[in-house]
Amino acid sequence: MQRFALLGAGFIGAVHAENLAAHPDVDLVFVYDIDLTRAAALADRFGGKATTNPADVFDATAVDAVFIASSTDTHAEHLRAAADAGLAVVCEKPIAPTLHEAERVVEHVEASGVFAMVDFNRRFDRDHVELKRVVDAGGVGPVELVQMSSRGPTLPPVEYLRVSGGQLRDQTVHFFDLCRWITGEDPVTVSVTGSALVDPTIAEFGDVDTSVAVLRLPSGGIVQIDSVRRTGYGYDERIEVMGADGLIESRRQPAANVALYSNAGITTSPLHKGWFERVQPTYAAALSAFVDALAAGGPSPASLRDGLNAQAIAEAATASLASGKTERIAYEGSAAP
Amino acid sequence: MQRFALLGAGFIGAVHAENLAAHPDVDLVFVYDIDLTRAAALADRFGGKATTNPADVFDATAVDAVFIASSTDTHAEHLRAAADAGLAVVCEKPIAPTLHEAERVVEHVEASGVFAMVDFNRRFDRDHVELKRVVDAGGVGPVELVQMSSRGPTLPPVEYLRVSGGQLRDQTVHFFDLCRWITGEDPVTVSVTGSALVDPTIAEFGDVDTSVAVLRLPSGGIVQIDSVRRTGYGYDERIEVMGADGLIESRRQPAANVALYSNAGITTSPLHKGWFERVQPTYAAALSAFVDALAAGGPSPASLRDGLNAQAIAEAATASLASGKTERIAYEGSAAP
Amino acid sequence: MQRFALLGAGFIGAVHAENLAAHPDVDLVFVYDIDLTRAAALADRFGGKATTNPADVFDATAVDAVFIASSTDTHAEHLRAAADAGLAVVCEKPIAPTLHEAERVVEHVEASGVFAMVDFNRRFDRDHVELKRVVDAGGVGPVELVQMSSRGPTLPPVEYLRVSGGQLRDQTVHFFDLCRWITGEDPVTVSVTGSALVDPTIAEFGDVDTSVAVLRLPSGGIVQIDSVRRTGYGYDERIEVMGADGLIESRRQPAANVALYSNAGITTSPLHKGWFERVQPTYAAALSAFVDALAAGGPSPASLRDGLNAQAIAEAATASLASGKTERIAYEGSAAP
Amino acid sequence: MQRFALLGAGFIGAVHAENLAAHPDVDLVFVYDIDLTRAAALADRFGGKATTNPADVFDATAVDAVFIASSTDTHAEHLRAAADAGLAVVCEKPIAPTLHEAERVVEHVEASGVFAMVDFNRRFDRDHVELKRVVDAGGVGPVELVQMSSRGPTLPPVEYLRVSGGQLRDQTVHFFDLCRWITGEDPVTVSVTGSALVDPTIAEFGDVDTSVAVLRLPSGGIVQIDSVRRTGYGYDERIEVMGADGLIESRRQPAANVALYSNAGITTSPLHKGWFERVQPTYAAALSAFVDALAAGGPSPASLRDGLNAQAIAEAATASLASGKTERIAYEGSAAP
Repeated sequence: MQRFALLGAGFIGAVHAENLAAHPDVDLVFVYDIDLTRAAALADRFGGKATTNPADVFDATAVDAVFIASSTDTHAEHLRAAADAGLAVVCEKPIAPTLHEAERVVEHVEASGVFAMVDFNRRFDRDHVELKRVVDAGGVGPVELVQMSSRGPTLPPVEYLRVSGGQLRDQTVHFFDLCRWITGEDPVTVSVTGSALVDPTIAEFGDVDTSVAVLRLPSGGIVQIDSVRRTGYGYDERIEVMGADGLIESRRQPAANVALYSNAGITTSPLHKGWFERVQPTYAAALSAFVDALAAGGPSPASLRDGLNAQAIAEAATASLASGKTERIAYEGSAAP
Repeated sequence: MQRFALLGAGFIGAVHAENLAAHPDVDLVFVYDIDLTRAAALADRFGGKATTNPADVFDATAVDAVFIASSTDTHAEHLRAAADAGLAVVCEKPIAPTLHEAERVVEHVEASGVFAMVDFNRRFDRDHVELKRVVDAGGVGPVELVQMSSRGPTLPPVEYLRVSGGQLRDQTVHFFDLCRWITGEDPVTVSVTGSALVDPTIAEFGDVDTSVAVLRLPSGGIVQIDSVRRTGYGYDERIEVMGADGLIESRRQPAANVALYSNAGITTSPLHKGWFERVQPTYAAALSAFVDALAAGGPSPASLRDGLNAQAIAEAATASLASGKTERIAYEGSAAP
Repeated sequence: MQRFALLGAGFIGAVHAENLAAHPDVDLVFVYDIDLTRAAALADRFGGKATTNPADVFDATAVDAVFIASSTDTHAEHLRAAADAGLAVVCEKPIAPTLHEAERVVEHVEASGVFAMVDFNRRFDRDHVELKRVVDAGGVGPVELVQMSSRGPTLPPVEYLRVSGGQLRDQTVHFFDLCRWITGEDPVTVSVTGSALVDPTIAEFGDVDTSVAVLRLPSGGIVQIDSVRRTGYGYDERIEVMGADGLIESRRQPAANVALYSNAGITTSPLHKGWFERVQPTYAAALSAFVDALAAGGPSPASLRDGLNAQAIAEAATASLASGKTERIAYEGSAAP
Repeated sequence: MQRFALLGAGFIGAVHAENLAAHPDVDLVFVYDIDLTRAAALADRFGGKATTNPADVFDATAVDAVFIASSTDTHAEHLRAAADAGLAVVCEKPIAPTLHEAERVVEHVEASGVFAMVDFNRRFDRDHVELKRVVDAGGVGPVELVQMSSRGPTLPPVEYLRVSGGQLRDQTVHFFDLCRWITGEDPVTVSVTGSALVDPTIAEFGDVDTSVAVLRLPSGGIVQIDSVRRTGYGYDERIEVMGADGLIESRRQPAANVALYSNAGITTSPLHKGWFERVQPTYAAALSAFVDALAAGGPSPASLRDGLNAQAIAEAATASLASGKTERIAYEGSAAP
């Protein structure tokens, strides 16, 4: 049994708490939050002791691993604390608000030698995993063109967007990571075209809600990612990888499988209403991958370095959006994943 | 060049006239009809000489082949005349209104040795042909269950239905033929359940508009055919063949390939509005098959004997509908196709 | 909280135990089995006290409801005991091995007034529920033709089949129930054609592994159900309801949503490998429906009477398979669901 | 009847000849080519008089309209001649090899007042037409993101590519036109990322075989077009238009509609083997549109100005590929289509 402390008892903390409770090899021993009431609510439902005291959590005699699901500005501090305590750690993205700070944290954690993972949950999507398996097996030949769509159904609150770092850092970064994960390459340049079409307020703080990013891989392959904050037809996530010999697609996922035939057409079930319905199973899969890799002493399924490199792409993409130019991506000592 | 005479200048005659005119190896020399105006209208558009004189047509010095697309009650007479004149002949189904008469005609034509084909056009459907190719190649293993749907969008006029011989003889007979063609077996029994749901008038003359026929093959395989006169969603034709190793399906055919995504669902193009839109290409394909087989001296793509055997199944099916029992199918000297 | 006792700790008992443990309004207090080791294994994982003593279970001071998942021959006895103890009860099908015995049990339970449900789990399938919702809302108009496929991937062991009561009672009965549930009608006749194609041994005890049943509804509508014990392409379950105005389909369910494009075709994910992968979510949904209806004092989502009527259809279908005739279905005092 | 002269008797000339011959309101009176043998071969098959003399063709007493399907370098000259002779004219793209020359030609033809059309045949694709109808009717709301794929199955000969003007002018230009046609907007900027992945020789003359172009519309909407010279899975053409309220897709078009189910997956028919199989029906549709608009005195379905504007986008796109920057598109006096 691995003894886990969960940090953060908000919406996503609750998701992780449920998965931690259900995992046969996990013992949820602490639920930490700065708000004891929130921590207690989760602890009551899913087990563990509620605490507001970090010293409870970062204690290698009581805890084997911490799961950081607290607010973004606390990730770096908690990662350092876990490293110092010699605890394995899985952390929601981003590692830190700025790339520079993130780099410092990653160096610190790497130096400590603790086992660490960024919770890039989409790497654990059932269909994306199968797509990657086929690509890795040479099923489509050398990769030439990748297309990804990341489209949410509803605009998040403008107050959230204002502090989110922008669409590319907040939303697209998951797909920058998928780009590296699927192709095994670190893209060299990125060019972004974006607009604020849903809410003009967003443009006031330099952000966009609809964008297309185009990346070039060292092999010459091209990756295109569109990011949309609000569709009129549900949650739309989709990946296509075209190689020299064929194409594989992780398709749009309908919420059900019913078809109504009429003279007007054939209407099948809509896509999932929200992002959570689509990605929910990936959280448990990511947790299992972490638990298994930790137990096996294997490589991290998504290292902090992976998190850093995705963040580096997001930085260059954000710069391209501002400059209107193709930007070179500056990795800090990166090698391809 | 094969010199053709077309008999019958109605709706389906016009379809054949256009295909005869377009075929590079065919010379349409006569358009015969009892109504000279109708014959002339077609001849004007598609070539050939209009005539109301059978002697023009059944003349081996001027004509190589006749295409019988006249009214059902004239098929037998024209088939005999073609045989007597030594002309190749392709004939719309049925060979004759009664099975007994049809048998006499087939014997007569077979004795003459002329090349003959029943225009079972669905044998030439692009997708059905591919389905049969896979079945014949063993792609699904030994056939165990076949399902076919034959569903028209609108009820034909009741006056037509009254003289049609009934749904099983008029509509389902095409699929009784497909059953033999696909499986290579002569079904031994048939059991039919049917209702007049669209128009109660139909029940008055013992007919149905919605029916399910279940046939047993000598191998033990089962074939199920549903026939519907009126759907609320267009023309629906579909075949599934399940074997021991897999299943192949000639799918419902949408009229186009457009999809509209909304919160209510994903609406793709409807099925074809009418049967003709679906089967139109099969007529030209059937004609080509006839022309090629005639030129090559090969076997008929759909012999009169095939027509007779499909008719025998339709007779037993019609009897089953009346008796409420499983009926044995009586072929007259048949071997499997 | 409703206090449940689970009866039966085999494969399906374990499925129910997991769902009982996860349900927020359920307290699993006893796991009963004749084998204490099996009962204890489940109780260890999912809670409750293991017991081999029926007196523990049928005790209204400690238990509110019993879930009967024990072997088929014990259902009747446990149902009677629950009724006598005044406990709510949900029971796996069938109620009893023979229709006559089942009728006696249902009368007994009905007389007791306890809340009871047959676990016809397919009534709780996500897609079937949506199909029924549309049918009930008039979305396809009056029902004219229903088609259902029930096709398992692998032949169960012959020893199991020998005592199963035959394909129609064991497998198709779920779909006889769906037929009544979807249409709201009690079919009046049934005609079955079947073969033993997978294993000839099955024919020796009068059973089949591939069959087509055709039922006629009082409205004249026709229902066709094919049942297959072994496909070469995974688990295939599918329902189509054609009405006067359109058609609705609960489609074949692929296990994933990935597509590989090559010159040979477009290959999408296969169907589920087994029946359990397909129907797993229905068990939790059925349990929730039972819990909710019990709490609300509402009608049973699937009454014992429903179980009895489905069994009556299976009896007539089994008779038709033997007689080769269309058989009238004899309900014992039934009204449509 | 409109009297047509066809200029050019090569592969695409033969396609047009067949359509001209089949059109009920067209009289094909001349087939012109610099090679009399080629002209005569077409005239023999499809009617008209073969000629190598331009004076025969540009003669308003004998001809109403000319169809320019000759080599690209002759388009401008033939367009001017048609204008001078007062003949209606339909012309394959491009109008002239350089944008400057094309502008001069369009001014000349516009000054003459003759009815003229660029044969942008994809505007007449069955599914694209339906997509545009829905967009125009507001079916997806204001357009926010358009995605188009133009992917051919096999690399054209390098000798052809060397003189083709490059992928963006030769292949993508059709989709630059569709972009304007669908959105009713003239894009303001374009940014292109491209690679020579199929054959490195192509890079030697500055061309690419795989590229992604991103355009910005005046409304802020974004258009993304990928162009691929060689896939491993057939001809792939696809358009998606996402608006504020939904998304409409003109889908990849399979060559047939057959599905094979096995344990390995569900394999449906591949895409069309070549571009011609996919677009063949658009040529006849474009011709009909021209004939109808000419007869009605209506606006051109695709004016020379449309051709010019698509060419202007292709110029800017080609410049972007070379510069690595987003380029502003310079139209010469254009208004949106």
